[in-house]
Amino acid sequence: MRVRNKPWAKDYMAEHTERMVVEPEPLRGDWQSRFPSDQPLYVEIGTGKGQFIVEMARRHPDHNFIGIEIQMSVIAAALKLVVASGLTNIQLVHTDGVAVNTIFAPAEVAGIFLNFSDPWPKKRHIKRRLTSPVFLSHYQDILQPKGQLQFKTDNRGLFEYSLTSLSNFPMVFEGVWLDLHAATDGVEDVETEYEQKFSSKGPIYQVIAHFPEE
Amino acid sequence: MRVRNKPWAKDYMAEHTERMVVEPEPLRGDWQSRFPSDQPLYVEIGTGKGQFIVEMARRHPDHNFIGIEIQMSVIAAALKLVVASGLTNIQLVHTDGVAVNTIFAPAEVAGIFLNFSDPWPKKRHIKRRLTSPVFLSHYQDILQPKGQLQFKTDNRGLFEYSLTSLSNFPMVFEGVWLDLHAATDGVEDVETEYEQKFSSKGPIYQVIAHFPEE
Repeated sequence: MRVRNKPWAKDYMAEHTERMVVEPEPLRGDWQSRFPSDQPLYVEIGTGKGQFIVEMARRHPDHNFIGIEIQMSVIAAALKLVVASGLTNIQLVHTDGVAVNTIFAPAEVAGIFLNFSDPWPKKRHIKRRLTSPVFLSHYQDILQPKGQLQFKTDNRGLFEYSLTSLSNFPMVFEGVWLDLHAATDGVEDVETEYEQKFSSKGPIYQVIAHFPEE
Repeated sequence: MRVRNKPWAKDYMAEHTERMVVEPEPLRGDWQSRFPSDQPLYVEIGTGKGQFIVEMARRHPDHNFIGIEIQMSVIAAALKLVVASGLTNIQLVHTDGVAVNTIFAPAEVAGIFLNFSDPWPKKRHIKRRLTSPVFLSHYQDILQPKGQLQFKTDNRGLFEYSLTSLSNFPMVFEGVWLDLHAATDGVEDVETEYEQKFSSKGPIYQVIAHFPEE
């Protein structure tokens, strides 16, 4: 998501280092130290303005949440939301796109969320898609056994690619939704800003999958 | 697909035993004897009125095709189409729904097609869905290594179920299409009667998958 540069962002982030980490590598394996309680850790990669992860933190006080975002002006908006929420089970990470296995230790993470990731539609950009094999191998590095990857998108091409990529890695599907907003099985759907703004144009797709045990 | 009983069907089938088999078990392992040339064998389970399998036989003279159907009045219509086509690389099988691994020998089949199979939407009928685990194990019994299962449907619930069922069996996806008629990758789409009649109401879903090698 591209947004205009926000001059206030840098100062605001400097004032709220209790909520936001800009040098994540030293915390690798020690993320629970950033939270009041030692609880299962869920990570959203590409957290945007934070609506999803903040609502998840509100609904699940028995879990800890981390939202990772590379764009400073976007994560500054998320930081405002986190500060306003008063929730202590959520942290933000601003990073310039390093691999998540340099941020988290093996089995440190209980679940990963990818929401409306960049589709990178051109063939030569396939390796940038967050569901391509190298990224999946990083998720495998950091997830606990049976830890879930939950991915949703409105981009048909990206979802077709992702189902095939996950299947070949291999990952095992726990559930697939081809029109999440029409689902009648009671699956939880916390909406992102993007989802609320654009979802009327077509279906929202979702898959929940895990890596098979060795 | 339910159709009215056709009084002519039984007689017509009796007149064309060169095209149609009603006792398939004795041919198990020997299906090539029903064709002029020994060629890779493709099977459609639930062939309906035969439009798909006859067009496939026309397009692929280097393959042999078998269409299986349990409803006599429907397969009689398929038989008319087969006879009219003059094609010799297609046979029909009328059976009362026995497992396909009693009809075909291990590795006798190069590929299986399931088109618009009955969705059996109720939970208590899950075991009747043609993509449920017991059916998949029968397909595994008869398919050659890397033999493909190609499944298409317009039923969202059945497709969601099927992706999950195949993934857990496990099978490996070669491709997934979430709107087959909008596909731009050149994938072959031979339409069924049902597809031509109803597809404007929503997307056609398709998956092509194979069993992993031991």
